Amino acid sequence: MKDALIQKLGDKSAVIGIVGLGYVGLPLMLRYHAMGYSVVGFDIDDNKVDALLDGKSYIEHISSDDIQKAMDDKWDATTFFKNIKNVDVIILCVPTPLNKYREPDLSYVLNTMETLLPHMRKGQAVSLESTTYPGTTEEELLPRLEERNFKIGEDTFLIYSPEREDPGNQNFTTNTIPKVVGGHTANCLEVGKAVYAGVIDTIVPVSSTKVAEMTKLLENIHRAVNIGLVNEMKIVADRMGIDIFEVIDAAATKPFGFTPYYPGPGLGGHCIPIDPFYLTWKAREYGLHTRFIELAGELNAKMPDYVIEKLSYALNQVEKPIRNSRILILGIAYKKNVDDERESPCIEILDKLVHMGATVEYSDPHIPKFKKKRNYDYNFESVDLTPDVISSYDAVVLATDHDLFDYDMIESNAKIIVDTRGKFRNFLPNIIKA
Amino acid sequence: MKDALIQKLGDKSAVIGIVGLGYVGLPLMLRYHAMGYSVVGFDIDDNKVDALLDGKSYIEHISSDDIQKAMDDKWDATTFFKNIKNVDVIILCVPTPLNKYREPDLSYVLNTMETLLPHMRKGQAVSLESTTYPGTTEEELLPRLEERNFKIGEDTFLIYSPEREDPGNQNFTTNTIPKVVGGHTANCLEVGKAVYAGVIDTIVPVSSTKVAEMTKLLENIHRAVNIGLVNEMKIVADRMGIDIFEVIDAAATKPFGFTPYYPGPGLGGHCIPIDPFYLTWKAREYGLHTRFIELAGELNAKMPDYVIEKLSYALNQVEKPIRNSRILILGIAYKKNVDDERESPCIEILDKLVHMGATVEYSDPHIPKFKKKRNYDYNFESVDLTPDVISSYDAVVLATDHDLFDYDMIESNAKIIVDTRGKFRNFLPNIIKA
Repeated sequence: MKDALIQKLGDKSAVIGIVGLGYVGLPLMLRYHAMGYSVVGFDIDDNKVDALLDGKSYIEHISSDDIQKAMDDKWDATTFFKNIKNVDVIILCVPTPLNKYREPDLSYVLNTMETLLPHMRKGQAVSLESTTYPGTTEEELLPRLEERNFKIGEDTFLIYSPEREDPGNQNFTTNTIPKVVGGHTANCLEVGKAVYAGVIDTIVPVSSTKVAEMTKLLENIHRAVNIGLVNEMKIVADRMGIDIFEVIDAAATKPFGFTPYYPGPGLGGHCIPIDPFYLTWKAREYGLHTRFIELAGELNAKMPDYVIEKLSYALNQVEKPIRNSRILILGIAYKKNVDDERESPCIEILDKLVHMGATVEYSDPHIPKFKKKRNYDYNFESVDLTPDVISSYDAVVLATDHDLFDYDMIESNAKIIVDTRGKFRNFLPNIIKA
Repeated sequence: MKDALIQKLGDKSAVIGIVGLGYVGLPLMLRYHAMGYSVVGFDIDDNKVDALLDGKSYIEHISSDDIQKAMDDKWDATTFFKNIKNVDVIILCVPTPLNKYREPDLSYVLNTMETLLPHMRKGQAVSLESTTYPGTTEEELLPRLEERNFKIGEDTFLIYSPEREDPGNQNFTTNTIPKVVGGHTANCLEVGKAVYAGVIDTIVPVSSTKVAEMTKLLENIHRAVNIGLVNEMKIVADRMGIDIFEVIDAAATKPFGFTPYYPGPGLGGHCIPIDPFYLTWKAREYGLHTRFIELAGELNAKMPDYVIEKLSYALNQVEKPIRNSRILILGIAYKKNVDDERESPCIEILDKLVHMGATVEYSDPHIPKFKKKRNYDYNFESVDLTPDVISSYDAVVLATDHDLFDYDMIESNAKIIVDTRGKFRNFLPNIIKA
């Protein structure tokens, strides 16, 4: 069955099922389709499925035009998971968040598997792309498949291949980012390579699914720790009267042995603040602490408070408290030039200021309306920036440094600027680095 | 006086005095000479001065031939510090170690300054290159110069410009590594740029001496923390049955957002294990803790014990204790392809094994004899490696992965290999990752 599946993948007669049509699943679905495969997208969200059948995108960096062009007889989307029997490859792109105790929440992965299992057939490959702790594929997916009498490596092929999407990255797209692939058996790996070889330029095979799982975690742990480190260095440098951004730029001129990471108002997004704790949780099973991850988590989590402390200090200079001051937050997306405010520390800053009694508004060219969130429920709309608008606030906080902001105009008109991103390099008394 | 000095630097009639002729000062002295300047090297060590006047090198990666070629009427070296009056530029390249309480030991810098001060004259520039905490130049050098009535920025120019030498680096040499320069005043910076412009391809001016001081520390803190992180990840991965080197190599295929650092037997050399604590010490003055630095220090410092634990486990498999076992340490230099064993964790491993009663020998093609150290006093000579020699040991520990080792021969003949560098990628029962 292995050879038959590999052949179908090679001649593109294989049907690819993508489960979970978010910022990972949708670009992958488009890519498979563009390379000539028949694709079926599965999601529990009617709105997404309807959009894809109507030729509409729901992700900023993917255009509706791209969807419309893909709408032919090889393009399908559905909420009927029993149709999974019609596909040859099942790629799982569902979220793996943390619960409120910062423990892995595998419910999306496991509920999806439980829903799919009764409709699976022999001859299929299953590839998990969701970020998770080492051992998930072997300990959670494998036994569920074996219980249903699938013979892994013989009639069914189990793969783990972490997504590496980077929304907003202009230099790399789905196919130019090398893809790490681990299989549960040698046959699984062989199938795994065939699954991705038709759509990704470079495949990086590794010796097991848990090596592939650990690879993705190491990538994101590396970022979380390096950002935590520069956040700590920012606080130390600030107290010593040193601008950390100038230091980082100077250090970055070293042509070996140094990679610049920049401080900010805290960690955001769906990956860096979350993924590392998947390893922390799993390591406890082995009696180990992941101390760098925990320290980085602590440092990064306290940055919103640090920004507020700096804002409070700046307002105090002009004899104002935070209560009843008019504050404008510039940028609420979790990183620049994207429309994604998931886990954004900017919203935490905004929320804290509201609770402290400030009159808070925001401006973000990528997020015209503030979406309702589990923990936040504001009816905010992005403020349009003009010199008069800027000068009407007691202080503006640059939280996310979108390229669309007019920094010269902001600098010329703001009474106080609290700059969390090192964008304002003039040493002026009303510009506070935070 | 500023313009006169800058002009002399520009037309290369300026005489350059290098104080401290070690792995930083000597290459710099050669570089100034090669670019047409008259140079005078100062050192308290007769042996170094004699060698330079005799055409002999005492540093592995600098050949005696290079010294001999430089020996003309523009080449001089001396132990007479009063001759400092004859130079236009004083570049300080002296060590800045830690004392046994891990506090900065500025005695080399300060004693050198005290020795030089009575012989200095107006019109000179002083540039400190030694790694140190932010504020050293302003707090320690500036007042000593002002006490002697030098007017900084007018008749004397005070500069901090950190060395970035990387012995053994084949891709970069003194002149191709961009040089960060900070001046105490604008005039000092202008002179500082002129001091280095004639010998270094790219000058990176920064706004103050303390920004330049912090830059060098950030570079080395970044390395210490990233190595600490991968050492912790190695321990976690090992317990989960995952080879961290395979994971790092896979993660390194991500074309953005990840930089590979590799674990090892601990930190070594004269920079990475030491420099970060200069910031730790200074930060205490501001009531701040540098928690990443301290965590990295702790993790990295315990790696030799981790290696010994792994060795003990491996010997236990063949029913042997460490006492009376014959152990060979491969590589005692602190990093590969260099002859420098300062602060080498390999020596700590060797020393601990000796104290545990093992019969220990070492082999290092770059260090034929074990130099006597403050804390160690062995009369070891490097063992020549043959198949019979390798197989005569109960275990070999790969501590430093020199390119000159014949890894295939070692793998074929060793009874047990404890590999701290991930060089042996075959999964064999007698190869233990540590």
